[in-house]
Amino acid sequence: MKKGIKVTFQPEGRVTYVLPGTTLIEAAGEIGIVLSSPCGGKGTCGKCRVVISRGAPDPTDLDRSHFTADELDRGTRLACQTRVQQEMVVNVPSQSRFFEQKVAKTATHVEVELEPVVRTQFFQLEEPTLEDQRADSDRLLTAIKRESGEPSGGCPVKLHLSVVRKLPSAVREKNFAVTAVRADGEVIDVVAGDTTGRCYGVAFDIGTTTVVGMLDCLDAERPTRVAARTNPQVRYGDDVVSRIEHAQNRENGLLNLQESIVGCLNDIVGELCEKAGINRHNVFEAVVGGNTTMTHLFLRIDPSYIARAPYVASLRNGMTCDAADLGLDIHPNAKVFTLPNIAGFVGGDTVAVILATGLLKSDGIRLAVDIGTNGEVVLAKDGRLVACSTAAGPAFEGARITFGMRAADGAIEKVVITDDVELAVIGNVPARGLCGSSLIDAVGELLRVGVIDMTGRMREPENLPESVPPLVRARVARADNGLRFILANPDETQIGGPIYLTQRDIRELQLAKGALAAGVATLMKEMGVRPSDLQEVLLAGAFGNFIRRSQAKRIGLLPGVPTERIKFVGNAAGTGARMALVSRACREEVEKISLVTRYVELAGRPDFHEAFAEAMLFPEP
Amino acid sequence: MKKGIKVTFQPEGRVTYVLPGTTLIEAAGEIGIVLSSPCGGKGTCGKCRVVISRGAPDPTDLDRSHFTADELDRGTRLACQTRVQQEMVVNVPSQSRFFEQKVAKTATHVEVELEPVVRTQFFQLEEPTLEDQRADSDRLLTAIKRESGEPSGGCPVKLHLSVVRKLPSAVREKNFAVTAVRADGEVIDVVAGDTTGRCYGVAFDIGTTTVVGMLDCLDAERPTRVAARTNPQVRYGDDVVSRIEHAQNRENGLLNLQESIVGCLNDIVGELCEKAGINRHNVFEAVVGGNTTMTHLFLRIDPSYIARAPYVASLRNGMTCDAADLGLDIHPNAKVFTLPNIAGFVGGDTVAVILATGLLKSDGIRLAVDIGTNGEVVLAKDGRLVACSTAAGPAFEGARITFGMRAADGAIEKVVITDDVELAVIGNVPARGLCGSSLIDAVGELLRVGVIDMTGRMREPENLPESVPPLVRARVARADNGLRFILANPDETQIGGPIYLTQRDIRELQLAKGALAAGVATLMKEMGVRPSDLQEVLLAGAFGNFIRRSQAKRIGLLPGVPTERIKFVGNAAGTGARMALVSRACREEVEKISLVTRYVELAGRPDFHEAFAEAMLFPEP
Repeated sequence: MKKGIKVTFQPEGRVTYVLPGTTLIEAAGEIGIVLSSPCGGKGTCGKCRVVISRGAPDPTDLDRSHFTADELDRGTRLACQTRVQQEMVVNVPSQSRFFEQKVAKTATHVEVELEPVVRTQFFQLEEPTLEDQRADSDRLLTAIKRESGEPSGGCPVKLHLSVVRKLPSAVREKNFAVTAVRADGEVIDVVAGDTTGRCYGVAFDIGTTTVVGMLDCLDAERPTRVAARTNPQVRYGDDVVSRIEHAQNRENGLLNLQESIVGCLNDIVGELCEKAGINRHNVFEAVVGGNTTMTHLFLRIDPSYIARAPYVASLRNGMTCDAADLGLDIHPNAKVFTLPNIAGFVGGDTVAVILATGLLKSDGIRLAVDIGTNGEVVLAKDGRLVACSTAAGPAFEGARITFGMRAADGAIEKVVITDDVELAVIGNVPARGLCGSSLIDAVGELLRVGVIDMTGRMREPENLPESVPPLVRARVARADNGLRFILANPDETQIGGPIYLTQRDIRELQLAKGALAAGVATLMKEMGVRPSDLQEVLLAGAFGNFIRRSQAKRIGLLPGVPTERIKFVGNAAGTGARMALVSRACREEVEKISLVTRYVELAGRPDFHEAFAEAMLFPEP
Repeated sequence: MKKGIKVTFQPEGRVTYVLPGTTLIEAAGEIGIVLSSPCGGKGTCGKCRVVISRGAPDPTDLDRSHFTADELDRGTRLACQTRVQQEMVVNVPSQSRFFEQKVAKTATHVEVELEPVVRTQFFQLEEPTLEDQRADSDRLLTAIKRESGEPSGGCPVKLHLSVVRKLPSAVREKNFAVTAVRADGEVIDVVAGDTTGRCYGVAFDIGTTTVVGMLDCLDAERPTRVAARTNPQVRYGDDVVSRIEHAQNRENGLLNLQESIVGCLNDIVGELCEKAGINRHNVFEAVVGGNTTMTHLFLRIDPSYIARAPYVASLRNGMTCDAADLGLDIHPNAKVFTLPNIAGFVGGDTVAVILATGLLKSDGIRLAVDIGTNGEVVLAKDGRLVACSTAAGPAFEGARITFGMRAADGAIEKVVITDDVELAVIGNVPARGLCGSSLIDAVGELLRVGVIDMTGRMREPENLPESVPPLVRARVARADNGLRFILANPDETQIGGPIYLTQRDIRELQLAKGALAAGVATLMKEMGVRPSDLQEVLLAGAFGNFIRRSQAKRIGLLPGVPTERIKFVGNAAGTGARMALVSRACREEVEKISLVTRYVELAGRPDFHEAFAEAMLFPEP
């Protein structure tokens, strides 16, 4: 064993000991300091900058490309490129940290009949005598059959090995009074006495960025508990493609990613159980929804082929596994069901959205858009479903935007232009950056007043329309890399300088909204649907719920339908996972959804590229 | 960690290091020297005597009760009572060793259609394109469904988690040509290319004393391989009751017993695979038959309640488990099926005998007797079945008989009385003792010539009939504990003294044969069957096959039917296990057998005790 090298992270003063060669981003992650890493540790985005006050190695070429000589002299380095070879003291500035995004933590009310796959049954078994020498197993199985008839279409009830092992003592502990816990045709636990009303299940929505867990009692009416965490896999890259690359190219990469997400789920279960005052082993079932890559990583399935033409998932169908086999720390025989996928880039989370919004079962023409780290679009026409995925998300989540950030404290969340620019900042603190909704606001407002033209070009100060108010006009500034619009002056920010929008930022937004809008347009074309036909446009996902509908229409992110037809449906992916947890009927419906929803591959499709080019432009006012 | 103490076993010179306090019987067992221990280590039978030439502790009271002062001075001790506290050199005489019994190692020819539960299928899957982006899992599942329709009554085909994990690389290794291994509705392995014809299964017959394994190829015609071992659990006691006591009363007793039998099965698999030239991971299924206690121990289920009124098993039904969960070193996803039991003392081995002999399906009246360490009896009348268990075995296996031993080298296997006594000895070596068949022979012959009367009493030399030849007459000798009959003089033996039969030995035989015959009588009474109604009497088991039918009838072990109606059916328990391995139909039949066979409890039944008293006597010639 090599001896660990000490690394101290400031300002927390947290210390870790790591093997020589470990990167700083990994070292920090191990003690819970999560650094921003949109590029997945390739050294290209520059977002993981740290200042090494002791033990700084010579700068790499990548360090030199990102930082000035002064900065390098002060010890500024890319955490993803710096390998620990000697003792270090490292300062992590707040801009380099990955902040938790604000998510709606309240559970959506689910209108489904409680008929879970896992259920408890109490039995007073007959005690054996010399005249009735039936085995313990027969006593239990007979009682089950008598009470419930043959379950699950004629498959006989089976006893889990661990149940048979517990059976002799369990039945005799309380005079042959026992509670059996059944998952479909299998008895997965048996406990002495009557323990009904204490059987729980947990539903997870594993987002690329945020993981939400919801705990429900499956055999009694009890409040749903909710907890959320940042997906700790962000330290291996912000988007699915970076994570796939990590899984593919790093030694133990896939294992790291799996252990990382399982650890996160276990943390969430711990919090949920504490809130509910129960033991982890009372959780007998889990349903896991996530995009296709998240599901592959959770199950430790190589996701490489998702990111490589022809973009094929390895797993489509829903999987039922034992919790113990996945390292999920709930009852070891608990069943873990992963929602089925539709395609490589449209996964179980979209299936859950379709379930929660009832798209498969409803008549009429409806569109659902789930903007997370990716943007998935589903169009339903009288129960026929088509879906696609677009790379819409990253810009809305702050990636590739100069001052972009997630919707966390310090993020500008609203921009209104009157005589001047008015801002609202999350947490009511000085601003740190722009989040998705304020990016849309800012561009929408600048479009409205004419600072930006239809093509997305920012007008030179001298070419601005007369109607632009003087204070607004004064915010257009020239810099080396082109024009910028000052949103917040240094005295309004916590970063020691102004926050502004560059011409490149506007182009990024155009790309993101163009991709999403082109996806919508392509699906509508596939189904022969015009915007005016849309009876509802459903916005799902953490980001979707903070958007301003009028601005989203103004920039052309959403089709031009009357605003009242645009509806927020909350964390529909999480809601769908919960529905599949508590309802056997929903569990069957998700498999159907995953099979009947037709995936439309946008890559290499000429009409998509045309639609994309067109959707890059902003609509005529 | 305490340091181990060195113990050397002679004459092998094998050395082991054990923790202080370990018994010599345990220490010897760890290096494969199995000592006889019919009493299960209680110190009562005296069969585990050893001579400690260095480091002998003071004798215990139990040692004093078994050995003379001289013997004690020479270091003679009970191995089960001697705990290692200092370095020792221990001599193990051959009489104290547990010898492997001779068993019929040839597999019985099975007339069943090869239709195993586990099977392989080769598929050339379609390669994915942008127009066909189906997931790897769907490619495989669709191919399976296309080729075979829905299996196992409508339950859909499932992929094992490990299969989904292997799938992406397995399909791409040989251009989407793969072989799937299926167990019922589950795909348990997937391998690149065409590997059909290499799928194996193993059937085990776990006897209390002897374990037999049989390896069959499940998807090609290949010879059956057979291997046998002594059940290493014998070191914890010779019969099921001693083992149940061990499981119940010793710390980790149940775990020791399970690990012991699993280790034995793994050894057997190793030998079988070597013989067949295959890898352990090519074994995808195992079927395990044993008496109810053996099955409980193999599955690590507490067997305590089997031995305690009202004598209830914990498990009746057949169990299907994953090999990995049981520690069985074959393919980790291999399915292990344990044959169902009938009652606490009539187990899966009897179910296998019924299967192999076709008792359930045949018309007419037939009796099957399986004499192993216990004696199980099954009576069939036009497809109705009753069964019981008797403590018949121990005496036939040498227990409680002065010179009793198993049918191993040195055992007298045949006794004929002409002018004098003529003997045949297994292995053609000087005799060491008497096995079951020669015990029956000896008593049968002594009955015939009149040395023993109908009540089992040995006649005083002066009361012998005139017809007894002088040389035979001279063999009746008087000793402190009564009369004895000298079978072999010291010059014919390897034990330095004569081999004889005592009055007590004859009483032991009477008890054993009486129990079995009373069991048969009770079942016949239950079904209203007379001896002359019996169309067949089937003798199963290792011992049954060495019996001489006429002698068995003479001593009243078997009912008085014409000798040609008595048939040897070999190791029917092993054959039945093999049938359940290779045939799905047989797998279904065993569950039926276990449910419809009515168990008749003999304990506390007045008519059994009556029959027993009567059956103790020998029949009129």
